[in-house]
Amino acid sequence: MTPDAAAVTPSPPVPDAVGRALRLDDLADAARRALPRDVWDFVSGGSGTESALAGNRAAFDRLRAVPRVLAGQPEGPGAWDLVGVRARLPLAIAPMAYQRMLHPRGELATAGAAAAAGVPFTISTLSSQRIEDITALGGTPWFQLYWLRDRGLVHDLVQRAEDSGCRALMVTVDVPRMGRRLRDIRNDFALPVGVSAVNLSPEVARGPQDRRAGASAVADHTSSAFDPTLSWDDLARLRERTRLPLILKGVLHPDDADRAADLGVAALVVSNHGGRQFDGAVASVDALPAVRDAVAGRCALLLDSGVRHGTDVLKALALGASGVLIGRPALWGLAAGGQEGVRTALSLLDEELREAMALSGCADPSAVRRLRLVNGPCHTPD
Amino acid sequence: MTPDAAAVTPSPPVPDAVGRALRLDDLADAARRALPRDVWDFVSGGSGTESALAGNRAAFDRLRAVPRVLAGQPEGPGAWDLVGVRARLPLAIAPMAYQRMLHPRGELATAGAAAAAGVPFTISTLSSQRIEDITALGGTPWFQLYWLRDRGLVHDLVQRAEDSGCRALMVTVDVPRMGRRLRDIRNDFALPVGVSAVNLSPEVARGPQDRRAGASAVADHTSSAFDPTLSWDDLARLRERTRLPLILKGVLHPDDADRAADLGVAALVVSNHGGRQFDGAVASVDALPAVRDAVAGRCALLLDSGVRHGTDVLKALALGASGVLIGRPALWGLAAGGQEGVRTALSLLDEELREAMALSGCADPSAVRRLRLVNGPCHTPD
Amino acid sequence: MTPDAAAVTPSPPVPDAVGRALRLDDLADAARRALPRDVWDFVSGGSGTESALAGNRAAFDRLRAVPRVLAGQPEGPGAWDLVGVRARLPLAIAPMAYQRMLHPRGELATAGAAAAAGVPFTISTLSSQRIEDITALGGTPWFQLYWLRDRGLVHDLVQRAEDSGCRALMVTVDVPRMGRRLRDIRNDFALPVGVSAVNLSPEVARGPQDRRAGASAVADHTSSAFDPTLSWDDLARLRERTRLPLILKGVLHPDDADRAADLGVAALVVSNHGGRQFDGAVASVDALPAVRDAVAGRCALLLDSGVRHGTDVLKALALGASGVLIGRPALWGLAAGGQEGVRTALSLLDEELREAMALSGCADPSAVRRLRLVNGPCHTPD
Amino acid sequence: MTPDAAAVTPSPPVPDAVGRALRLDDLADAARRALPRDVWDFVSGGSGTESALAGNRAAFDRLRAVPRVLAGQPEGPGAWDLVGVRARLPLAIAPMAYQRMLHPRGELATAGAAAAAGVPFTISTLSSQRIEDITALGGTPWFQLYWLRDRGLVHDLVQRAEDSGCRALMVTVDVPRMGRRLRDIRNDFALPVGVSAVNLSPEVARGPQDRRAGASAVADHTSSAFDPTLSWDDLARLRERTRLPLILKGVLHPDDADRAADLGVAALVVSNHGGRQFDGAVASVDALPAVRDAVAGRCALLLDSGVRHGTDVLKALALGASGVLIGRPALWGLAAGGQEGVRTALSLLDEELREAMALSGCADPSAVRRLRLVNGPCHTPD
Repeated sequence: MTPDAAAVTPSPPVPDAVGRALRLDDLADAARRALPRDVWDFVSGGSGTESALAGNRAAFDRLRAVPRVLAGQPEGPGAWDLVGVRARLPLAIAPMAYQRMLHPRGELATAGAAAAAGVPFTISTLSSQRIEDITALGGTPWFQLYWLRDRGLVHDLVQRAEDSGCRALMVTVDVPRMGRRLRDIRNDFALPVGVSAVNLSPEVARGPQDRRAGASAVADHTSSAFDPTLSWDDLARLRERTRLPLILKGVLHPDDADRAADLGVAALVVSNHGGRQFDGAVASVDALPAVRDAVAGRCALLLDSGVRHGTDVLKALALGASGVLIGRPALWGLAAGGQEGVRTALSLLDEELREAMALSGCADPSAVRRLRLVNGPCHTPD
Repeated sequence: MTPDAAAVTPSPPVPDAVGRALRLDDLADAARRALPRDVWDFVSGGSGTESALAGNRAAFDRLRAVPRVLAGQPEGPGAWDLVGVRARLPLAIAPMAYQRMLHPRGELATAGAAAAAGVPFTISTLSSQRIEDITALGGTPWFQLYWLRDRGLVHDLVQRAEDSGCRALMVTVDVPRMGRRLRDIRNDFALPVGVSAVNLSPEVARGPQDRRAGASAVADHTSSAFDPTLSWDDLARLRERTRLPLILKGVLHPDDADRAADLGVAALVVSNHGGRQFDGAVASVDALPAVRDAVAGRCALLLDSGVRHGTDVLKALALGASGVLIGRPALWGLAAGGQEGVRTALSLLDEELREAMALSGCADPSAVRRLRLVNGPCHTPD
Repeated sequence: MTPDAAAVTPSPPVPDAVGRALRLDDLADAARRALPRDVWDFVSGGSGTESALAGNRAAFDRLRAVPRVLAGQPEGPGAWDLVGVRARLPLAIAPMAYQRMLHPRGELATAGAAAAAGVPFTISTLSSQRIEDITALGGTPWFQLYWLRDRGLVHDLVQRAEDSGCRALMVTVDVPRMGRRLRDIRNDFALPVGVSAVNLSPEVARGPQDRRAGASAVADHTSSAFDPTLSWDDLARLRERTRLPLILKGVLHPDDADRAADLGVAALVVSNHGGRQFDGAVASVDALPAVRDAVAGRCALLLDSGVRHGTDVLKALALGASGVLIGRPALWGLAAGGQEGVRTALSLLDEELREAMALSGCADPSAVRRLRLVNGPCHTPD
Repeated sequence: MTPDAAAVTPSPPVPDAVGRALRLDDLADAARRALPRDVWDFVSGGSGTESALAGNRAAFDRLRAVPRVLAGQPEGPGAWDLVGVRARLPLAIAPMAYQRMLHPRGELATAGAAAAAGVPFTISTLSSQRIEDITALGGTPWFQLYWLRDRGLVHDLVQRAEDSGCRALMVTVDVPRMGRRLRDIRNDFALPVGVSAVNLSPEVARGPQDRRAGASAVADHTSSAFDPTLSWDDLARLRERTRLPLILKGVLHPDDADRAADLGVAALVVSNHGGRQFDGAVASVDALPAVRDAVAGRCALLLDSGVRHGTDVLKALALGASGVLIGRPALWGLAAGGQEGVRTALSLLDEELREAMALSGCADPSAVRRLRLVNGPCHTPD
């Protein structure tokens, strides 16, 4: 590992809260106590009225599974196909910006925990650690691409991702602009000094630190740096240019999924961006079945937004996903206890998923895919 | 602009609350603090148990949209066809009575903000500013007609609306009598001195100021002044008499919509009067699809009742409306900050709608109309 | 009118609360303050977990109507056919026991208000005033019959009902035993001294005053006095024996409704006894459509349980009822203000129903029957 | 009865709370006050987020029955066929471990009350009283079998169950591992000294008393003692080996029900283990109709999880169960008042079921089976 800020700022001892955490919500509580209010709000909040944020949880809670019994138990550690890589859990760490805001080691801690847990880590375009420092940790790094106005920078990032060993390129397609996150605006949110998108040029990276009354500096930066004109043609050209499998993140509509499959993407992430972008959006998990039917197996499906329990992972898989992305929970772990906190988050999900599989009679991934779900209040008594 | 009360009562400096408002609810909070309780209640309340009022919001919240991606972004300012006029937003200010109750400049402030924002302003029959003073502000004035017992007055109002340049005539058809608004009755509500329906004859206009225990003077006035016998034949004759496009406000039933379309109206406002009339009514937005199907394009559809967010506008358009009417939010802005407050309300909606379109992948109005919606808790998992 | 307790105990002056009441809930509040806690609980409570009680309201609230416009307005006072009698409102007072518990004049006050309002009053088998004293007030008295073990008493009551001018015989069929009303049991509920079922023999009538720890004396009395074996054959014989039209109260199942129609009853009351009997019962209004379809016009349908607003009356009529029974609200009025209180309850419903009809575009009863309803959260957006 | 700990620790006098209990929830309140917090949590809690636990109640509450009238009343005490035995109530006591934790006499008190009430009692593999001491009480004992790693112990238990007169063998199939019950883990839960699974060998039984920080000793014991590989073949062999009727407990999926019926089981318990195992599970009562259809009468169906009222029993029977298992409510009674408390629990259910049958017009079990149910918020108005 190359020297970095984290190397000189020693991780604090793991707080008791992490050691005692029994579920991801416990890590959220610990993170809330550990973080400045505005950083907590940035991590936890959604856009607008936060109705999409709340809707993601409500949708999972409504879904109930009909478990099987006597079906044999999982043997040994899990082995999941996650967009062509073998993972120990059917999940990857979602791309999330500026992780040094939450912990001095930032992405290095998160990626380190992911590598140790055997799951992919997605390096954000807005990573606050260098791509090469993260990939040097091993594991399965993926690179997430925002479509920047500076097209040279885009190509440079893709090149660096390829060169440093990233195994997939995940293009986020649901941020033509940043959703209005009212908490951040009320907080005059800006990045703390010393945290920036180190993989961009300093001029491009500087914006999010310029605190301004009545505005989110991060959102303003997005407006100026991102190119909202990203098109299907751009993606087709990108696909020609790179040898990495392409993952499109932020697809909810079956027609878009169909077109993406035609384009030859390796996977889609069915996502409403954790309720941070379009506040009127359908819950990701409610959108999944139609996307699955449209794609009909031509590419893999990942699901994110609202996954908080092993049973959520199980439900997503039962509806056609081959895995999920974990966002906020990883950051909660990071804030609460650095790499050990992230490890705890992944370990809790692992434990919960194993439990959910064992208790629903799913000995292997194919059994999970066949699991029957019902939607809470809407089935009839006979 | 002709001299008026507002000209001699200077607008108060824009309160901070308006400048800091991030959504319409912030303006509601500011208005609640600025207004006497009984005026706030008059503006905010509904009829009966206020179940229609609450139902309007619940219906919008249940509806979720399935956004598109990579569909191109809106270019430049919006251009919407709103009943034959080009508007910068797919909305108009709803007709609302007695606006000088909320601010000395009343309708002049609201209409001024509307004109500046490029959206129609509907002058109420019960306007507390003169028709001609409002139309002198320019913009796109519409005139709203209550069917008064004094038929001469009706014809006089229509004539004045035509002569002063109103661009449409909106006849309200859901007030054969005023809904029982219990808050107003409990408050012994009457108009403040100096506020009246200045476009009516003084004798007709006087009633709403006569405070009486256990009664709403405004409701009593409606009973005595409005003619509950308004019929389809009356509307047919009115249509012959005026050269203005006719808009019917307050239609929820598809058979009424069908008949209105046959009559040759330019547009319908699908509305339950913001929950202020029939307390048992279906939510406007829940009634919209059947009305759209019945009309089948023969006239335009507007939607009001409960629109509070840009995503609500988007949902209404996706279900077949070509625009919405904004009621209480404009009054909140007016109470909180006069014309600047109304401007803020419109500006917030503009910003939210642009955001909603951008994030749902709608580059133009036709894309919004094709947006797919689902109804929250009632779809099945596969 | 014969001398009675009420004649010597003058009614208290009408409390302000009655005069200021704007809806039935206001009368409930006044009654709660006026009554001893155990009497309030007896009147307000339901059986078991009170889930049927709550379900009745939830069902009405979910139903929403699609109003018509420009349909003409009601002319003059209402004229409704209520099981062969012309009523000024589509409602009757439900049979309710022991009304002198709530006010010294008891049933005389309630029946007097009903007669004045032009609606039927149902004399309970457990009336605390004499049948003949009530019928002497005029109006449209109906007699409600509980099937007593003392069959001679049954025939005697029917004879007295006929002789004194009752216009219909309503047989309650949903009390083979009394539902367990936990509030009453916790309160060791018994009738106050001086209140009893004066139309029964003293021996039969005495039981409900015997307060006993851990029991409801009223419920115990029901067990000993009522005959749970009432059968279709008994009803057939009763129908032969009496010249009065027969109304069956407490039918929820379409097959029972069908059989009752075959038997030649004049009407059914679709009712779950206001949530006081079978705690697992479907809401009355949710049961109505299937009953209507089964009966197919062969007899009239009344609806009770949960009617609290004019819009509820409208909804029941739109689903096929020709009227409703009003229970607790009449007692609230009685407790709060004697006959004037009941008059207020009826007057509020009258006003609310007129408003609901006017605002939903229903000029007459046949228009109400054609009104379209939707069930709140379960329709689809397109 | 053989001497046992309970014989030397006299039962406390029956607390008033038991004598005054009007429904099972009253016993829960009394138990909560009587028990140490960690024991209460062990009894009351569920796994994970306790969503399955809550879902069981919500499902029952949504279901509403359409009662019949004039159908004749039940005669004399009930006579129900419960998996080949005649019971006085359509219920049995569910298998529950370690009942001496709740009362010194433990299973002897519970089983004694069951015998007196004429309903089966299921002896848990983890019983804290000896099988033979329980069966000596008479009544209808059933034996519940967990599939232990020590197969000799399994065969020994089956043999003892047969020899001591157990009338059925109930194999629990939904505990391949114990669900993570977070309350127990937070409480460092372990069995009190003196309470253990006395029917297992001391070495096997010892584990649950070893309190360990951050763990449930009971759960850890399950992991080490239970064999998660239990298969259909094991069950087939078990069925060959024993002459007792076989009941499978924990089936929710119709395909599993079908296979079990093919195997020749006498009955299935449709159960999600009271929300203590798979937190993502469908409510038991929501799963029942599909299981009933799959089984098509080839074996009996019992239902457990969430039964708290006589109306719940009625609903389960109406959906195809021939009886229910009662779990926590029996323990509440046991904790609150020993055998008398359990007797009270059964007596309340008896009273409530008789009431529910009488008030829904069900004179006998076959009428209950024909009862029509609707699912609360999801039927349409016409």
